[in-house]
Amino acid sequence: MRKLINIPKDIVNEVIDGIVAANKDILQRIGDFTIIARKDVPIKNKVAIVTGGGSGHEPLFSEYVGEGMADASANGQIFASPSGAIILEAIKAAEAGKGTLLVYNNYAGDVLNFEMAMEMARDEGMVVEQVVLNDDIASGTKDKRGNRRGTTATPIILKIAGAASKTGMDINSLKNLAQKAIDNSRSLGVSLSSCTLPETGMATFTLEEGKMEFGMGLHGEAGIKKVDIMTADDTTKIILDMLIEDLPFSKGDEVIVLVNGYGSTTKMEMYIITRKIHLYLAEKGISIYSTEVGEFCTSQEMAGISITLVKLDNELKKYYDMPCEAPGFKKF
Amino acid sequence: MRKLINIPKDIVNEVIDGIVAANKDILQRIGDFTIIARKDVPIKNKVAIVTGGGSGHEPLFSEYVGEGMADASANGQIFASPSGAIILEAIKAAEAGKGTLLVYNNYAGDVLNFEMAMEMARDEGMVVEQVVLNDDIASGTKDKRGNRRGTTATPIILKIAGAASKTGMDINSLKNLAQKAIDNSRSLGVSLSSCTLPETGMATFTLEEGKMEFGMGLHGEAGIKKVDIMTADDTTKIILDMLIEDLPFSKGDEVIVLVNGYGSTTKMEMYIITRKIHLYLAEKGISIYSTEVGEFCTSQEMAGISITLVKLDNELKKYYDMPCEAPGFKKF
Repeated sequence: MRKLINIPKDIVNEVIDGIVAANKDILQRIGDFTIIARKDVPIKNKVAIVTGGGSGHEPLFSEYVGEGMADASANGQIFASPSGAIILEAIKAAEAGKGTLLVYNNYAGDVLNFEMAMEMARDEGMVVEQVVLNDDIASGTKDKRGNRRGTTATPIILKIAGAASKTGMDINSLKNLAQKAIDNSRSLGVSLSSCTLPETGMATFTLEEGKMEFGMGLHGEAGIKKVDIMTADDTTKIILDMLIEDLPFSKGDEVIVLVNGYGSTTKMEMYIITRKIHLYLAEKGISIYSTEVGEFCTSQEMAGISITLVKLDNELKKYYDMPCEAPGFKKF
Repeated sequence: MRKLINIPKDIVNEVIDGIVAANKDILQRIGDFTIIARKDVPIKNKVAIVTGGGSGHEPLFSEYVGEGMADASANGQIFASPSGAIILEAIKAAEAGKGTLLVYNNYAGDVLNFEMAMEMARDEGMVVEQVVLNDDIASGTKDKRGNRRGTTATPIILKIAGAASKTGMDINSLKNLAQKAIDNSRSLGVSLSSCTLPETGMATFTLEEGKMEFGMGLHGEAGIKKVDIMTADDTTKIILDMLIEDLPFSKGDEVIVLVNGYGSTTKMEMYIITRKIHLYLAEKGISIYSTEVGEFCTSQEMAGISITLVKLDNELKKYYDMPCEAPGFKKF
């Protein structure tokens, strides 16, 4: 393993401290918990937005905490959900009397713990609702979207929900808006290598040199098709065809494009793919409103990329356009 | 090689198109050249700032073009300087009658070509000056700083120079300011693996599993010390001790800290290192004004990190604090 860490069991703890140290003007740690929150929580006159999940996917989730994004993130150990108790502490830190919306990705452990925290918070008299991302089209059929995993749409959904909460939107309208954004989001990735788990040095899967696999999960979950490494353009076309067919996206639609690197993929590759996305969607008559390129949701040093498309309407566009300032997502 | 590209000879061309596609509101390509410029060049009443160098280090250099940063970047092929002719075209695109400051890294090929472009531009009657970064302390002794390579201080220097140029500062004052920022900057890195060249699939060097090397260059240039992989904390301490001794940085100094990932290093590792930097500099009585963590200057998918310290005074602080909006560096 070629990683710079200290004692494996301290990784998440030290990462949380590092994130706060680098962003001390806007972020804080809540107690000794693996929770990052805005420095100014609880923030009056807005629904709190709490996100979170397993660590090891940085900048997900903590770098999406900031003005116009999430109010707090609850972080688990590497590739493991935070406990219900930690999530409850994150809710309590963020909650300002207008309720809390939980925004997280669809993994069994996360669902279990976020729902447990939601019930505990409700028992204490707080108003808590949730939306669960399921944008990864490789992890379930179209008619059973509830089985699909959430992946790289997270910053987009948090951006839209965060902007709307800042305007004072009530919790039910906010939940509906975030759900609409999720319903309009589709992602698919391709992996060219495994990652190694920093706690053990073990690879989560093996992929022979020269092969790539579509639809692998962020933790090494099996994909849908293994092939010889293709060109960037052909890879992009295959992913876009599957995404377009799934929603479906149609001629005349306006979308946000997010190109995500899983870890060791260069930005050079991401931009080559971005170029092809623009050419191909133009052919299809789908217009691109905004393009985000970078590492937004990683799987350690896995090689590969994912593409997310989010279909916009005027309401989603309005909230997407508002400024935000989180370490991992800034918009003027 | 596990990379998503098309035809190797088209890489840089396609990357330029991708960067512009993703940032079409603020960036443009100049003709068919491998030049990225702000969409609104030439910009009146300011000295133009032109940067550039070899490709393959993305987000360097093109993502540092934007308001409050550089006006244009001239890009070479992978790990190769842009030609003098390309640099001259970048100067011509950016120049608005108040002169142009070239800001680039100290590599023989870049010096040759940027100086050639400067002479050609002067022959055409333009006012052009240059500053050359040499922040990498591993690549030359302290008494021969002119031999040292420029590395990861680039976004900080462009940030300060870009802000000052926006205020209308004249070219000589701007050159002095940028030179002061360079003189106050020191960087040192450690590599845990080689990168592979996308054009050939070849590694630029070999580093056995379990080893790491301090001071390797961005193109596989030999480092200064090869050791068994150490903990993040011990690695950080060694780098900081060498940086502190070199300037030297002293008790009471105020610095910008930049933690750079070379390619496949996770943000998790960068934050563990950031945590230690904050603890260790506090011990030394050196106060941290701002911390930047991310991939700022990569060497393809090389594993490793570098740390940059920039000593501040009130003037440098003032320009560092001003807002900027480039794809790879945003400040509110």
